[in-house]
Amino acid sequence: MRAHIYITPKEGILDPQGLTVGKALRNLGMKEVTSVRMGKYIEMELPRTTRKKAEEITKQACDRLLANLNIESYRFEIVKET
Amino acid sequence: MRAHIYITPKEGILDPQGLTVGKALRNLGMKEVTSVRMGKYIEMELPRTTRKKAEEITKQACDRLLANLNIESYRFEIVKET
Repeated sequence: MRAHIYITPKEGILDPQGLTVGKALRNLGMKEVTSVRMGKYIEMELPRTTRKKAEEITKQACDRLLANLNIESYRFEIVKET
Repeated sequence: MRAHIYITPKEGILDPQGLTVGKALRNLGMKEVTSVRMGKYIEMELPRTTRKKAEEITKQACDRLLANLNIESYRFEIVKET
């Protein structure tokens, strides 16, 4: 199985990198961009696991290492390798 | 409109952060994880734009600022704000 993991700053948490990128885009002429939030996208390979096992491991990986739960939230999906 | 942007290291490009995270997960006992690729996930708000205009601006933002096309590839989807 393969996990696609999306980690984003929690609502209400200041995201200075996103603010900076948003400003840079507007300075480049893309005035329509009002807000940018920067997060992480992680692809994780878990060959020879069941969907259930892959979900368990991915949750554990997010909780213990990948996400800082004080300021970030995460969601993920498990897909079959192509 | 809102853009969801996914930026990943290109196939064959070394991803030292991913290698390190993969090793750390295995050291934490998650032996099933064979490979990790670290990318970026960006949410961009483009209120009062059409879908076509939002696609144009998002492509421009990726090409000119968000992605380093030498080593990264990107894909995005445009969704209606909820």
